[in-house]
Amino acid sequence: MKDKFEKEYDEIIAGRNSVLELLKSNKDINKLYIERGEKHGSINEIIARAKDNKIVIVEVNKTKLNSMAENNQGVVALVPPFNYCEIEDILEDAKSKQEDPFIVILDGIEDPHNLGSIIRTAETAGVHGIIIPKRRNVAVNNTVVKVSAGATAYMKIARVTNLNETIRKLKEQGLWIIGTDGYSKTVYYNQDLKGPIGIIIGSEGFGISKLVKENADILVKIPMKGEITSLNASVSAGIIIYEAVKQRQS
Amino acid sequence: MKDKFEKEYDEIIAGRNSVLELLKSNKDINKLYIERGEKHGSINEIIARAKDNKIVIVEVNKTKLNSMAENNQGVVALVPPFNYCEIEDILEDAKSKQEDPFIVILDGIEDPHNLGSIIRTAETAGVHGIIIPKRRNVAVNNTVVKVSAGATAYMKIARVTNLNETIRKLKEQGLWIIGTDGYSKTVYYNQDLKGPIGIIIGSEGFGISKLVKENADILVKIPMKGEITSLNASVSAGIIIYEAVKQRQS
Repeated sequence: MKDKFEKEYDEIIAGRNSVLELLKSNKDINKLYIERGEKHGSINEIIARAKDNKIVIVEVNKTKLNSMAENNQGVVALVPPFNYCEIEDILEDAKSKQEDPFIVILDGIEDPHNLGSIIRTAETAGVHGIIIPKRRNVAVNNTVVKVSAGATAYMKIARVTNLNETIRKLKEQGLWIIGTDGYSKTVYYNQDLKGPIGIIIGSEGFGISKLVKENADILVKIPMKGEITSLNASVSAGIIIYEAVKQRQS
Repeated sequence: MKDKFEKEYDEIIAGRNSVLELLKSNKDINKLYIERGEKHGSINEIIARAKDNKIVIVEVNKTKLNSMAENNQGVVALVPPFNYCEIEDILEDAKSKQEDPFIVILDGIEDPHNLGSIIRTAETAGVHGIIIPKRRNVAVNNTVVKVSAGATAYMKIARVTNLNETIRKLKEQGLWIIGTDGYSKTVYYNQDLKGPIGIIIGSEGFGISKLVKENADILVKIPMKGEITSLNASVSAGIIIYEAVKQRQS
């Protein structure tokens, strides 16, 4: 939720529990807005902690606060936004670790729980970076940060305008781009996932978009035996990422 | 949320959107409670659809309705509960398919999103059944059904009083019980997951409980290379279940 109170480089965290957790985490807070006259319950702890951390506190009226964020419970924090990186930073990270690039590319993940869970899995698996498109994909917001169990603090994430252009560049850099498609004849574990790779995970509802699919070097499928013919996006990602981990360790 | 209005064999779905979706899904509804005098907005569509489907509609006052469910928005539906099965039904299913039993055992999954996602993965993977404990584990509720993408309609799920007693019985039936533990020396993909198996997935916060862990035949770990040292429970489940799928198909 953006508005005039929020500079382009700030993100909003609203609500007492969220702001209190934020204060406890010692993460940067640029400014704290408190509803004028609000002195009940946990607001006092929030004010006390903010003062301890020398955070600027601004008292505003209810209308102003509501225009910044809904369900704010009388408190809104402005925090520096997630620090996205460039594709080059991801490739550089792999190089500095003397490893073949291992990248996850997300095409249209809309659910912040899925994005958070995929970031967590990728960080755990030693993936060098995640690439998400600027449009039709959820950004790293407060929910994503929470669900990632803190992995957003460690994972390099690049946001790109044109996913197909990015994939072409990665292919030029020698990466092998692997997409997922239920109609593919190649089962994921029969595919070589060693060397420099990018694994594309498609959206929850529609999978990988047509053009991105055409751009992939190979499509693999996860075999399905039941009545339900698709997996949760973060589970699919986990299955393929960990098959790659296995192959790359042996 | 149970109370005197709800018979033991009924479950409650409250709120306008949830009840409306329920009506659209054509699932069984035993009775619909509507707040007396409430005639605004979607309540009319709810009443119209309920009448079309010949569902008994009972008008009650606000106090009564609130005692049945919080945040009910003037409407509460009673639906038949999820139809849990017995352990024997799961083993019988494997037998009838001439397959070695492939069972998932959940120890303390609290998040309905995780339970729903695990049920979806298990159904997709051809798991014969899921076992959950009656206590300290979320039951198959409305959220679980939604997140499972419909897999709850196909998956056999048994609820047991004593998980350790159940594991002992499964071992007597020849199942090999595999737990997950970050401290194990055996990486999951180096473990034989063919033959009759039960895979235990632990709780989001604490993993598998001590006694259950002692009861397992073997503990395996998912290797982790990052700063974050645990995976989302449904992702862990997906990774190990699909390693089993792979081994069992070859």
